[in-house]
Amino acid sequence: MLVPPPVVVVAPNSYKGSVSATAAAAALSRGLARVWPDGERRICPMADGGEGTLDAIFSRGGRRGSARVSGASGAPIDAAFGLIEGDAIAVIESAQVVGLTEANGIATAVEQRSTRGLGELVRTLLDAGIRKFMIGLGGSSTNDAGAGMLATLGVKLVDGKGRDVEPTPLGLKALAQVDASTLDPRMAEAQITIMSDVTNPLCGERGATAIFGPQKGVATERVAEIDATLARFAPLAERAIGRGVKDRPGAGAAGGLGFALLLLGGELRSGAEVVADLLGLDAALDGAHWLITGEGRTDRQTLLGKAPFVAARHAAARGVPVTLVSGSIDRSALAELRSRFTSCHALAFGPATLEECVANAPALLADTAEQLARLFQARAA
Amino acid sequence: MLVPPPVVVVAPNSYKGSVSATAAAAALSRGLARVWPDGERRICPMADGGEGTLDAIFSRGGRRGSARVSGASGAPIDAAFGLIEGDAIAVIESAQVVGLTEANGIATAVEQRSTRGLGELVRTLLDAGIRKFMIGLGGSSTNDAGAGMLATLGVKLVDGKGRDVEPTPLGLKALAQVDASTLDPRMAEAQITIMSDVTNPLCGERGATAIFGPQKGVATERVAEIDATLARFAPLAERAIGRGVKDRPGAGAAGGLGFALLLLGGELRSGAEVVADLLGLDAALDGAHWLITGEGRTDRQTLLGKAPFVAARHAAARGVPVTLVSGSIDRSALAELRSRFTSCHALAFGPATLEECVANAPALLADTAEQLARLFQARAA
Repeated sequence: MLVPPPVVVVAPNSYKGSVSATAAAAALSRGLARVWPDGERRICPMADGGEGTLDAIFSRGGRRGSARVSGASGAPIDAAFGLIEGDAIAVIESAQVVGLTEANGIATAVEQRSTRGLGELVRTLLDAGIRKFMIGLGGSSTNDAGAGMLATLGVKLVDGKGRDVEPTPLGLKALAQVDASTLDPRMAEAQITIMSDVTNPLCGERGATAIFGPQKGVATERVAEIDATLARFAPLAERAIGRGVKDRPGAGAAGGLGFALLLLGGELRSGAEVVADLLGLDAALDGAHWLITGEGRTDRQTLLGKAPFVAARHAAARGVPVTLVSGSIDRSALAELRSRFTSCHALAFGPATLEECVANAPALLADTAEQLARLFQARAA
Repeated sequence: MLVPPPVVVVAPNSYKGSVSATAAAAALSRGLARVWPDGERRICPMADGGEGTLDAIFSRGGRRGSARVSGASGAPIDAAFGLIEGDAIAVIESAQVVGLTEANGIATAVEQRSTRGLGELVRTLLDAGIRKFMIGLGGSSTNDAGAGMLATLGVKLVDGKGRDVEPTPLGLKALAQVDASTLDPRMAEAQITIMSDVTNPLCGERGATAIFGPQKGVATERVAEIDATLARFAPLAERAIGRGVKDRPGAGAAGGLGFALLLLGGELRSGAEVVADLLGLDAALDGAHWLITGEGRTDRQTLLGKAPFVAARHAAARGVPVTLVSGSIDRSALAELRSRFTSCHALAFGPATLEECVANAPALLADTAEQLARLFQARAA
């Protein structure tokens, strides 16, 4: 070889329904090692604040924790969280508590699901002395505007007769008054980073219920009613806490959990950007020659802040070429993807079903990375 | 751009059942032009002596001709041929005359099919003053050991009573004597290049009938009988002409047409090598930076002299990296393909059926070439 092997940053997202970001990075790296056995590979499995965020963060250290809290339906579940920076920061994936899984109680109707468990988890962490939270939204099954979390953290939600109401879309129908004077005082010291790429407001036709409700099981004919319930709850809660956030971008994330976290002073950031920071992606890119990223399916949505896009942006800022290896690429988006990715490639080596690609993903990732690496070095050789 | 655009040789085979080599080369070239609008592209659509050979040759000039001759069943068909080097050389595709198509009469049983039409075509060309022939085998529907061609060129095939026998597997059963003294005297001046990658002998368990008979419709239980017929015919013909060729590699090509052509003094050469010569592939590779080749399906067979392999060999001899773009790649062969191809890639951009890939082949070829080109230049930039 006439040129030294390149330094390659391997920073895929998870391939949804197939392999985790960590497994994908390992497979890609294996393929690269066949071409450059002695080459340096910097492994940065990515995530966007949704599922896989904890795993990605653990790839760079940190400590795993778990707490027994209420799932979306109220049944107890064990939710994982992460502790980083010497236990100073807790990383929470909302989906661990109220995600779209059986364990989290999604057999219950969405009108009765609640984010109480998130409040319990935050309280547990406050008890442990933690005041910095990074909370990934995405993949939630709830649509309660974060009322459950707020209630668990001490906010009183009562009906016309002063009785507590259930912090669920159903319970909030009877809501008459919100009292935040009872909010856990430790929350005043809390710094919350909200990880989300959702920019929707809490209510209205671009709101949480209208846009994301149906995929959580909100019947079309109930959308208006639930949206109206949240629209009544929001100003009461805003006045009680003294902040107006319901129309801010991201208030509609995770069934309105974004609203409640903004209300608590949270700052919304791109999940992938936060993960990139936590993983030290910029440092990994220093002196690198190539970045390989990827995800399960790539289309125009990828350009709206998904992990491969964010990885590409960081690479481009340093003049590092970026190759995307995706399970599937919307060819009609190639012209737009061109502005962000040096090259885009799929995993398949010929006609194949989705199931075959999913089942063979690690081997396909390794083989594809190998072939692309061989081409990458062809001209330099 | 910091470096000038590379000179790229575009030399795909046809993508069987989908696009011709010429169409594939045009599509690949279109993709490359998106990356290097002013870059030089040298278009060399390849072929291996079988279907598509004429088309490939015409991409570099030459003249198209057509003659009405007998198809495999005897019904008249119009067979295309090519004239190159100022009409000094005729290029014939056997499949044009006795190919596996309805037009060529494959509704008739293989026992009654004959290569007469090839003899007629050669005679027509002899009449036109041509003495140099390049004859591509492959894709034939006949299994007559070229008896039909020999008979048409004047070789007498008679039974015990001196009556002409049909030059078919069925007719040859009654063969008693072969007389070559009546062979067209102009054949003494003929120079025949046989284009084939088949190395099988005429008869026996690796012979034409045993190996290729069944795909032409020879019933399993008739293989031995037809093989025995050819085994009786061969030495009679050899003695009559004064050459022993039945055990030579390639005698078993095209149902034994290879045998008859060897008997007439033909020289067997790799079809793809002949095409590479005719197209001036070596000249195209001079000063080139990259070769892109491809085919419909790639597996270990590709390494047995198929067009992409031959193109890759020529490129490697000049230190030019070679990228293969295939409709489908047998991943289990990647380790072996590595020794010949710098990189191997499929067309698909995700899970897809064969039909989808076939239907969209030109667009897929262009998009794939574009992405690979972008990666190819990434490190050089």
